[in-house]
Amino acid sequence: MNYKIILNYLGRILLLESAFMLPSLVIAIFSDTGRDVMSFALSMMLAAGAGAALAFLPKPEKKSIYSREGCVIVALSWIFISAFGAVPFMISGSIPSFIDAFFETVSGFTTTGATVLADIEAQPWSVLYWRSFTHWLGGMGVLIFILALTPAGHGNGMPIQIMRAESPVPVVGKLAPKVHLTARILYAIYFALTVIQIIFLLCGGMPLFDAVTASFSTAGTGGFAIKNDSFASYSPYCQTVLAVFMLLFGVNFNIYFMLLLGEFRRVWKNSELRTYIVIVALSVAAVTINALHYFGNFGDSLHHAFFQVASIITTTGGTTLNYEAWPEFSHEVLIILMFTGACAGSTGGGVKISRLVIMWKSLVGEIKKLLHPHSVTAIKMDGEVLDNGTIRRCGVFFFSYLLLICASTLIVSIDGLSLETNFTAVMATINNVGPGFGLAGPVETYAIFSPISKIVLSLDMLLGRLGIFPILILFAPQTWNAKK
Amino acid sequence: MNYKIILNYLGRILLLESAFMLPSLVIAIFSDTGRDVMSFALSMMLAAGAGAALAFLPKPEKKSIYSREGCVIVALSWIFISAFGAVPFMISGSIPSFIDAFFETVSGFTTTGATVLADIEAQPWSVLYWRSFTHWLGGMGVLIFILALTPAGHGNGMPIQIMRAESPVPVVGKLAPKVHLTARILYAIYFALTVIQIIFLLCGGMPLFDAVTASFSTAGTGGFAIKNDSFASYSPYCQTVLAVFMLLFGVNFNIYFMLLLGEFRRVWKNSELRTYIVIVALSVAAVTINALHYFGNFGDSLHHAFFQVASIITTTGGTTLNYEAWPEFSHEVLIILMFTGACAGSTGGGVKISRLVIMWKSLVGEIKKLLHPHSVTAIKMDGEVLDNGTIRRCGVFFFSYLLLICASTLIVSIDGLSLETNFTAVMATINNVGPGFGLAGPVETYAIFSPISKIVLSLDMLLGRLGIFPILILFAPQTWNAKK
Repeated sequence: MNYKIILNYLGRILLLESAFMLPSLVIAIFSDTGRDVMSFALSMMLAAGAGAALAFLPKPEKKSIYSREGCVIVALSWIFISAFGAVPFMISGSIPSFIDAFFETVSGFTTTGATVLADIEAQPWSVLYWRSFTHWLGGMGVLIFILALTPAGHGNGMPIQIMRAESPVPVVGKLAPKVHLTARILYAIYFALTVIQIIFLLCGGMPLFDAVTASFSTAGTGGFAIKNDSFASYSPYCQTVLAVFMLLFGVNFNIYFMLLLGEFRRVWKNSELRTYIVIVALSVAAVTINALHYFGNFGDSLHHAFFQVASIITTTGGTTLNYEAWPEFSHEVLIILMFTGACAGSTGGGVKISRLVIMWKSLVGEIKKLLHPHSVTAIKMDGEVLDNGTIRRCGVFFFSYLLLICASTLIVSIDGLSLETNFTAVMATINNVGPGFGLAGPVETYAIFSPISKIVLSLDMLLGRLGIFPILILFAPQTWNAKK
Repeated sequence: MNYKIILNYLGRILLLESAFMLPSLVIAIFSDTGRDVMSFALSMMLAAGAGAALAFLPKPEKKSIYSREGCVIVALSWIFISAFGAVPFMISGSIPSFIDAFFETVSGFTTTGATVLADIEAQPWSVLYWRSFTHWLGGMGVLIFILALTPAGHGNGMPIQIMRAESPVPVVGKLAPKVHLTARILYAIYFALTVIQIIFLLCGGMPLFDAVTASFSTAGTGGFAIKNDSFASYSPYCQTVLAVFMLLFGVNFNIYFMLLLGEFRRVWKNSELRTYIVIVALSVAAVTINALHYFGNFGDSLHHAFFQVASIITTTGGTTLNYEAWPEFSHEVLIILMFTGACAGSTGGGVKISRLVIMWKSLVGEIKKLLHPHSVTAIKMDGEVLDNGTIRRCGVFFFSYLLLICASTLIVSIDGLSLETNFTAVMATINNVGPGFGLAGPVETYAIFSPISKIVLSLDMLLGRLGIFPILILFAPQTWNAKK
């Protein structure tokens, strides 16, 4: 294990986090009380101090990173930025307990949006900005940001390992031949879409601070809002803009790259995108019809069904009303959408549509094989043959997902809350959605859970965001085995 | 598609079912009113008439069965025996509605044990005997019974297809070189264990009728009892005997064959058996401690925890009390055990321990591969290498399981009951357990569900019992495609 390079990366990421707190400090200086200025100034110094200490340790001699180091760097980076990112919440007095503040920050960076704060509007702007900004940073990945900054050719083959671990999509499309360039293109598309969204929201009359934070929240498909009622108080136009952009950020970013290259035919034929659109359309139709009686008119039912389906399938989790009041069938549609999640290579969570497409094709292939045992039929997706290894990994991923959901629900159930609360809290965190049902529902907070449950749910958020394996590897004994 | 051979098999199975109703007719003659004699006499004639008509159609010229025909025979056989097996319930007036009677019979043959009957003790003995006997027949498989009867060498390679489809264990251990002999050995072990259990129960002072029906119910790991309170009114000794035999019937029957051959070392090293024992022990310990407060003393808590864990993991579903009164953590242990199920090659349902072991080993293998991408390490189980195909099939199986659970829960939720009721009803039927939680709980019946939900849950029972694929193949368009 190359410990030196791991510590070097952790140092750089903390230095970067300190810089990311600057806007909040500026907001605090211009708007808030002295206390908030103090809290961000102190937090920045703490992160910068720790970062500098780690980054300026004796330089690593060997710059090469293997898969093992890549996973450990990613897992530890996310735990470190969450721990240091929790400090402003604690010093400002918004969330005094460390476990609660850590939960909130993990929820921010992993773009989950689950909160322990009951009165969000009582928080200072600087804290609210930091809270929403963590979504934007976590959405595309913090290490990818570092990669985008790194000059090309630095480090031998290291970045690909990190990129694979931080955005572990089943089908890795190579946007550009160089990893650094890929990281830059990703962030450029991400930045441009966010700016376009802010403009659309401003056109709808949304105040600037609301437009920026709401755009951070939807761009990262996170879900933190700056109002107690989430997005309920905005105009139907603004809500529709938010829902449409959630869906856009739930699309595989390769698609945007293909559009830039003018490859419209490939976009049109893309099976994940098609499945995504079909699932969204069917779910909106089902919920609209099922909730019609609740709303009394088709227009309202369609509007809120569209917003809520977009919000849940992209695992954003923002709401326009208390969807728990809808009929049971709509609940279960939403719970299933939590699980499916958005497209691979997007900022959304869940198991990802492409994995579902791969498994569905394998299932059809299995049935064909049973019907004609001696025929050899390759399973294809978007023109490429899915080999046994890809399907096997996908199956193992499903299994580990299930295993984690079972184990987490079991530990959380020690608190003695209902099955609905425990199960949907785990589903809402491991899939990075945010609100669940029952006592974890949209009008509740996660403050009710015990510290142990909060730690488990924080881990679930990290597991979900990082595609399970980096966190598993961090805790696997083999990783820390002295022998290479 | 070889239609003639399919019809021939369906005919033979109905003739056999007619014969299986004979004990109930005899019981009716000696104990019950004229109406029950009539109902079984008529049911036998109906099954025998339909069976004879099908079996004596023009004989099939080609005797060879391919995988496709094997699956269709198995799927249709189970639907036919359930439909004809429902007739006595309807004629006797016990369950007048066809959908309800079909649900009850599917629940019997698939060894689920979910019931629509509120007052079981009000039913005549002949009906109760038939109800429990369906568990015993379904436990080992009805077609396997036919195979055991068929003289060796009849039909070319056909039986292996049926056996594979009716007992689709992931690792098919070949007990004996000939399939017919295997079927006979399986039924011999099954019969012997059932007789031993009856003797143990009689020694505990249980009445003969109770001992026989309870043994049928535990042998098939079904769960139908002849009392309204399930197994609550029996003595602790008898309850312990029942629980121990449930666990014994949840063991892979290959293990008993190995014991007969004196291969104790292989039994001791068997990873599925070891995992099964560890899961049972851990679950009993966890529930005993968690429910200690409810019982007030350790002895009672251990006794009921042992019975309930044995009953749920083997997917029997019988109860000694209303386990819904236990704390939430115990509920969720039991729900997870519904899913794991018992060993492959046993009469229990669920996804089977061996599949979990295979997926767990694949997960560990995947982590090793991430740590050392260039090393080649084979994944082994009981000394044999698990190839990519086995792991892939296992993953696809998990996926289709999840898909079916989601789809079924969604349809059942249209009834408007709670998530707990819908989800656990689906879990309790697809895993062939019987009682779930909420309105599908141990002191409730399935009568509350709508006809559509009952049909979905009946299909779930069949899907679970037959390992999903035969039923999927029955409904796959490719199966009925005219071209070869």
